Amino acid sequence: MASVDVPVALLGYGTVGSAVDRLLREQAADIERATGHRLRVVRALVRDPKKDRGDAPTTTDFAEIRDDPEVAVVAEVMGGLEPAGDYVLELLRAGKPVVTANKQLVAHRGAELFAAAADNGVQLRFEASVCAAIPVIKVLREALVVSNVHRVLGIVNGTTNFVLTEMEHGKTYEEALTEAQRLGFAEADPTEDVSGKDAAAKMAILATVAFGSRVTLDDVSYEGLERVTPVDVAAAREMEMVVRLVGAATLVDGRWDVRVRPALVDRHHPLAAVEGAFNAVMLQGDAIREITLEGPGAGGIETASAVVADMVTVVGTTGTGFLQNDACWRELPRLPEGDVVSPFYVRVELDDRPGALALVAGKLAAHEVSVARLVQTQGEESATLHIVTHEATAGRLREALDEIDSLDEARGQASALPVISDRGVAELGWA
Amino acid sequence: MASVDVPVALLGYGTVGSAVDRLLREQAADIERATGHRLRVVRALVRDPKKDRGDAPTTTDFAEIRDDPEVAVVAEVMGGLEPAGDYVLELLRAGKPVVTANKQLVAHRGAELFAAAADNGVQLRFEASVCAAIPVIKVLREALVVSNVHRVLGIVNGTTNFVLTEMEHGKTYEEALTEAQRLGFAEADPTEDVSGKDAAAKMAILATVAFGSRVTLDDVSYEGLERVTPVDVAAAREMEMVVRLVGAATLVDGRWDVRVRPALVDRHHPLAAVEGAFNAVMLQGDAIREITLEGPGAGGIETASAVVADMVTVVGTTGTGFLQNDACWRELPRLPEGDVVSPFYVRVELDDRPGALALVAGKLAAHEVSVARLVQTQGEESATLHIVTHEATAGRLREALDEIDSLDEARGQASALPVISDRGVAELGWA
Repeated sequence: MASVDVPVALLGYGTVGSAVDRLLREQAADIERATGHRLRVVRALVRDPKKDRGDAPTTTDFAEIRDDPEVAVVAEVMGGLEPAGDYVLELLRAGKPVVTANKQLVAHRGAELFAAAADNGVQLRFEASVCAAIPVIKVLREALVVSNVHRVLGIVNGTTNFVLTEMEHGKTYEEALTEAQRLGFAEADPTEDVSGKDAAAKMAILATVAFGSRVTLDDVSYEGLERVTPVDVAAAREMEMVVRLVGAATLVDGRWDVRVRPALVDRHHPLAAVEGAFNAVMLQGDAIREITLEGPGAGGIETASAVVADMVTVVGTTGTGFLQNDACWRELPRLPEGDVVSPFYVRVELDDRPGALALVAGKLAAHEVSVARLVQTQGEESATLHIVTHEATAGRLREALDEIDSLDEARGQASALPVISDRGVAELGWA
Repeated sequence: MASVDVPVALLGYGTVGSAVDRLLREQAADIERATGHRLRVVRALVRDPKKDRGDAPTTTDFAEIRDDPEVAVVAEVMGGLEPAGDYVLELLRAGKPVVTANKQLVAHRGAELFAAAADNGVQLRFEASVCAAIPVIKVLREALVVSNVHRVLGIVNGTTNFVLTEMEHGKTYEEALTEAQRLGFAEADPTEDVSGKDAAAKMAILATVAFGSRVTLDDVSYEGLERVTPVDVAAAREMEMVVRLVGAATLVDGRWDVRVRPALVDRHHPLAAVEGAFNAVMLQGDAIREITLEGPGAGGIETASAVVADMVTVVGTTGTGFLQNDACWRELPRLPEGDVVSPFYVRVELDDRPGALALVAGKLAAHEVSVARLVQTQGEESATLHIVTHEATAGRLREALDEIDSLDEARGQASALPVISDRGVAELGWA
């Protein structure tokens, strides 16, 4: 076992960095009791040395950290792609283990960084890059080592989950977003969150770790809350479901698909219970059936807690630790987007003429989309069909919907949302 | 790093043991890819050598395993207190790391075993002893090392959760239990489960790990489903809650309380979403707020998966690993049972006479139990009061209820169940 006193360094001393320093100081006795080590920040890289940071040992010179032989592990908590990415690479090449909280960096350059870690026989840990303190990376890599995880379902963006939960309670999208901004759950510019891009980056990392094959942000097909309407939320409630922005990474016959979409989630599914700004990730595998982890997916202290846990693991497991360092160990092809299979909720508004229902049913049938349940509601001169399909490929459904949209009877475009349920869709409730 | 080929041994070759062997064979390539090691069962201790176990290398001589210098780690999957307990002690004293799936053993003799592991500088891991493949021990010990976990809430018995879920759907207790037995979720003699004793053993282990202080099964106050009636289930529904058998380990000012009780859980609380035979554990701490892990809490392959994960961790982290080996590092006193604080749901049936309500309210107030909400329902000649209290100590509530029970107007005994909600009790729904 290494010496009790372990010098460590930080790249960045903002919200997360200062929280890491504080946790290491305040919890020093607990950490030493649990691991035998007392971690101490001896150097923190900052841009502006004049800013007040108490007695933190700051520096503006990255080389001071890279070249200090005493520093046992470096936590990258500065964020951004550059210079963080090059710093991490340089550290790994210099034989320094690195812990990073940088979602964008791991999502964009993970494979390259993993390879550098493996080549240099040092650890790169990144728990805090996904869902803050929820230990999903540790569980995937260490606890589920024999589980063949083939599906990861995640509510991995707190902002959008908060907005959708508020919409359930009757708020409009705009009201809900304003409330999220007021409470600090959404940025002034919420684009990254509401577009699904933030969730996509997290799903890229989770898919990479779960499947052992490189998936980058560019490989993730994503859609945000743009198309979600109060009508969807109300229709979901009628069917005893809720609308959630769900990331889904699926491995089918050695091919992967990773996507983020608004989806209808059965009220009895564990993900439906995730409310407000919380996150949850469900891991489905052979030996474990499914394990769901839920908790706060953001926050400075939560993120710092994950960084510290990674640091003590690195310090306690010298060399390569007990995992190979390259989380990407194979190259699997992507599943063509249209081949992804799911049940769907489809809503079609039509002129209320005899035969309209039969026309729609015929178009679906012609593309092998089979109807599990159908409810028709009447408007003034129109009828709305609410359809839940059996499992269908996204491609065939799209073809059917394109034809339905071009019917003379069609009013506007049909909307389609994937349905997530552990039960058969025919057994879903309908209030 | 140790050599690629790692001989390991099993104590026991029943459902779990044979599944461990099978996983190690079938997943050998995956394990080697992830950890650099290929684990291979070279010896399995069995009682009856004549039973067909394929080509498993069985032995009836424990010493062969203990004294084999090649064996890197031993998995105890035989169950029972003896001889399993003495075998584990002997192995630890002989310097062999041990992984155990034995809930009873860890709950009864955990502190002694941890001490032996620490004294001999070897690891004792026990993930599979609680909730099968749900990696709650790993998360508690490794991921939440700086989180000061002060409360563990768990649905840790699948049988009772299945029964309660079925009662929610209208079945009687007897019908639900018969169904559980038919589906293999309950033993022919379900006493251990329905009495709360199984859950109590698991909570003893979780409390020990979470608080670092020894808690044995004898320290856990438990109650099972004996007193739960369809009236409770219906009342819970009225209040938008569900009845769950909840284990609660709480640390208050350096004193602990561990108990298992039927409780009313707010429908918006993560534990309320746990249905059927699933388990879930919520960990509440300083840095993480709360993290909930949910999954199947039983099953041979699920348990074996946790055993294998522990084995590869042991093999990959030679010596003491990255945790000190004694999970009990301090001795904390127990909180007097009556001092535990919770909101409660109280139901009192009274003769329908003027002033009866005032009498009950007066008794509660006299013992400093404050009423958050009250609904009165009328029977033929009686009235039933449904009361949700603010936080009150269990002791004072008991005193008040004893006095209420002895009122002339009282019909039968008042019933009281703790309420679990993240919201204020005054904000709970009431349909």
